[in-house]
Amino acid sequence: MTHQEVFEFHTKGRGMSEVTGEVTAIVARCPAGAGVAHVFVRHSSCSLLITENAAPDVRRDLETLAGRWAPDGDPAYRHNLEGADDMAAHARSMLSGTFVTVPVSDGRLLLGTWHGIYLWEHRTRGHVREIVVTVLR
Amino acid sequence: MTHQEVFEFHTKGRGMSEVTGEVTAIVARCPAGAGVAHVFVRHSSCSLLITENAAPDVRRDLETLAGRWAPDGDPAYRHNLEGADDMAAHARSMLSGTFVTVPVSDGRLLLGTWHGIYLWEHRTRGHVREIVVTVLR
Amino acid sequence: MTHQEVFEFHTKGRGMSEVTGEVTAIVARCPAGAGVAHVFVRHSSCSLLITENAAPDVRRDLETLAGRWAPDGDPAYRHNLEGADDMAAHARSMLSGTFVTVPVSDGRLLLGTWHGIYLWEHRTRGHVREIVVTVLR
Repeated sequence: MTHQEVFEFHTKGRGMSEVTGEVTAIVARCPAGAGVAHVFVRHSSCSLLITENAAPDVRRDLETLAGRWAPDGDPAYRHNLEGADDMAAHARSMLSGTFVTVPVSDGRLLLGTWHGIYLWEHRTRGHVREIVVTVLR
Repeated sequence: MTHQEVFEFHTKGRGMSEVTGEVTAIVARCPAGAGVAHVFVRHSSCSLLITENAAPDVRRDLETLAGRWAPDGDPAYRHNLEGADDMAAHARSMLSGTFVTVPVSDGRLLLGTWHGIYLWEHRTRGHVREIVVTVLR
Repeated sequence: MTHQEVFEFHTKGRGMSEVTGEVTAIVARCPAGAGVAHVFVRHSSCSLLITENAAPDVRRDLETLAGRWAPDGDPAYRHNLEGADDMAAHARSMLSGTFVTVPVSDGRLLLGTWHGIYLWEHRTRGHVREIVVTVLR
């Protein structure tokens, strides 16, 4: 039986926040069988990703690289209605993606030992972000 | 019960075409329950993505950035059998991806307010692209 | 009925290895009905991708581009505990992703004619990589 829940996350501006705990808790409410957890963020200026959860420098360096891939306030941008971080946020969202999927077994996420699920806020100011988790079995 | 449909889309060359309507119609034929819609393009020189559907400049600026990430006719490319846009198309496809997934509930896509699903043609000439939609519940 | 299997793959250092055969064999053990195959790698310094399986130069050129997107030993990196390829591997993993999904029908993957599923090792040395395949129907 498919299980679906929605939760909100208040970001504090650009950067990654771990949401592994929230997803783990939802998956634990589906205790039997194999399946896949689908995590989706209902916005296009932030994203979800799975990356190393041990060294915080990994997240800092990804932020540095994202600043090269999609610089704030690039003179080539035409879309800048909401400021220098507006288009950069959409581009980073495209590269990182609005969803992640993780296999599950008997109520547990089968993440790697060093894996965390992160919500990556790409706007410089904090936002309320809505996340939909669907556990397919 | 899983539902699967295939449709073809005729692109007109490089650029994004919204396919939210096509996917919405397929999902509407699965009226009950929670699940996930899986959308897959059976090619490696175009891609699918979820991005802002309001300002067309967002798609234009993504195209500009893609031209930096994977320039046409880069002298470093060895794969150029089909022209200057050939390898660039494969690289853009890798960055954007050949599939997207969206949660569904009672026959509706749970996209964000400003979300659209786009088929991104990376070849300069138009192609017929085959898209498989699977609604898992 | 959802089917899940795990297999290990021994990489020989940076580069792509095709795993389409392994995934195809697992999907063939689910002979009836429509669904989606989910393939997940339990590490954050390698990735999975779907790309052209005909010309090996496509994979070589993707490697060249990845070296621009996330150079080894970039002076801006703070995370370099395990060498010059450490942070580059995490960044390439983020861009390419730790999972792919492919529609299935009656025990067959609905990949495109020129599609292969690849495990992309981003570390310069070989590693044992664990891959989880879940067939959702």
